[in-house]
Amino acid sequence: MPEFDIIRRYFQEKTHRNDIVRIGIGDDAAVLNIQTDTNLVVAVDTLVAGVHFPLNTTPHDIGFKALAVNLSDLAAMGATPCWMTLALTLPQADELWLSEFSKGLFVLADKFHVALVGGDTTQGPLTISIQVGGVVTKDKALLRSGAKPGDVILVTGMLGDAARGLQLLQQQDSDIPDEYLAQLNRPSPRIAAGQQLLDVATACIDISDGLYSDLSHITTASGVGAIIELEQLPLSPTLRDDAITQSEKYRLALGGGDDYELCFTVSESQLAATQTRLADIEVPCAVIGCITDGNSVMLHSSEGSEITTDTLGYQHFT
Amino acid sequence: MPEFDIIRRYFQEKTHRNDIVRIGIGDDAAVLNIQTDTNLVVAVDTLVAGVHFPLNTTPHDIGFKALAVNLSDLAAMGATPCWMTLALTLPQADELWLSEFSKGLFVLADKFHVALVGGDTTQGPLTISIQVGGVVTKDKALLRSGAKPGDVILVTGMLGDAARGLQLLQQQDSDIPDEYLAQLNRPSPRIAAGQQLLDVATACIDISDGLYSDLSHITTASGVGAIIELEQLPLSPTLRDDAITQSEKYRLALGGGDDYELCFTVSESQLAATQTRLADIEVPCAVIGCITDGNSVMLHSSEGSEITTDTLGYQHFT
Repeated sequence: MPEFDIIRRYFQEKTHRNDIVRIGIGDDAAVLNIQTDTNLVVAVDTLVAGVHFPLNTTPHDIGFKALAVNLSDLAAMGATPCWMTLALTLPQADELWLSEFSKGLFVLADKFHVALVGGDTTQGPLTISIQVGGVVTKDKALLRSGAKPGDVILVTGMLGDAARGLQLLQQQDSDIPDEYLAQLNRPSPRIAAGQQLLDVATACIDISDGLYSDLSHITTASGVGAIIELEQLPLSPTLRDDAITQSEKYRLALGGGDDYELCFTVSESQLAATQTRLADIEVPCAVIGCITDGNSVMLHSSEGSEITTDTLGYQHFT
Repeated sequence: MPEFDIIRRYFQEKTHRNDIVRIGIGDDAAVLNIQTDTNLVVAVDTLVAGVHFPLNTTPHDIGFKALAVNLSDLAAMGATPCWMTLALTLPQADELWLSEFSKGLFVLADKFHVALVGGDTTQGPLTISIQVGGVVTKDKALLRSGAKPGDVILVTGMLGDAARGLQLLQQQDSDIPDEYLAQLNRPSPRIAAGQQLLDVATACIDISDGLYSDLSHITTASGVGAIIELEQLPLSPTLRDDAITQSEKYRLALGGGDDYELCFTVSESQLAATQTRLADIEVPCAVIGCITDGNSVMLHSSEGSEITTDTLGYQHFT
């Protein structure tokens, strides 16, 4: 099937349409109307087969996750997503694969009213690069740089399930709990939570590389330190009941990555109001520590920590 | 070298900065100020090693071309480029490669005042996906869809040199004219020409897949036909003097691709004014045919055409 037919059948005809799109797929570039009282917010994330997802991941899950990881970046800015472009490199034009991939992509795109406005399909090793654009009220975007000593640190959701799922997949375990696989393959970007944090959070980041590493970005950008209370890390019932050691559970929660939850800071005076806002939209959140006037992220356990920080976080090329 | 150091050293510290960037590289997403009387214009193009450029292409040329092909899409809309994001997948963090790649990228970015506002570096087979954003006066973007019967068809620059250069490279020719390699590796996006065409061109496209194929997009989108006069195709002095047959030269000009010139249509009454505008900015342009009330692109030669259209244009997966 020629490239243009692929684009039309699986992408152009299926995309959500919204008010900002003046010209979408089908010209040299997309033309968009951005509201005047907003800032444009853009992010890009790439998934490489075998690196960011196991080779046997379903195309539906790949499509879903490729967008989810990008929306998570917009969530961390407090932005409302509007549009995306898709750079899709794939070995061959497999119709079944494309059909399933586009279904997974548009399940999430439709949920958040995101229009696919352009893209490029090329032949090569499977690589998916999505760029998302959104808007946020002018000068209100949540940044990493505003945390202050005394601020409380919170995270949404539960940590470590995705990393545990990946670990079990790599061990070729045949009986992996659905909760782990759902977090690994179909993470829910915290768009609504990010929007609720506008005007209250002093700093915010999404947890993609692991809590320890991502919180370190907040402390570095803000020129502060932090203490994480290990016992307060939110673990799912499934991970709590898992046969691995408590220390390993903390390691997954701190350094596993792929959580796509938000880590954010608020002043103590805003804590109760923030918790109420998130409870109102049914997003769980947990206080996990506080910002200090130090310059590093410390771990604290009432039982004495067994965690070393050497292998926490994830970096490419190291 | 860790991912964050790579980003800082070769990209964050080197990028052009402009007024629209409120938050650039270094947060979850970029935050941009878009002027109120403009439309946002976005495009994305991917280059895959071995598919879009020969494996022995220098990293400097790869960086240059990866941005050039994207700016060419904005040129075809009449837009002014402002920002870009870079999704870079590479086998390993080779400092020399990255240093040269970023130099090639920023030579062109600085020339057009394009700020790098975000990106993602991942490990995998060499693939470069750039997304560019620009602005154009509200509702003025040049589209493919406005050509009318009787309109004159023009192209900027010369056609076929890049394709001839690629052909010689593939034949492992050791004596390839510089003009061919310059067009192949360092095409000049026609930003200034696109801007001059606002309010005069009835349709416009950039010639990336080959004139015949790209003009067909204009005729399809506009619901018209076209005639191309073969003898009027602009060929460079180098290609004119090349030992290959005249028919092969036409084939390269019509279907070779990688030209990154603009093909556009104007009404006959606007022709002289358009030619003057482009002459004023020293962009060569040639009348190559006219729009008809047919529904296909016909080739016409005063000597009788020897060109078949079967192999013109370039499509992936066919």
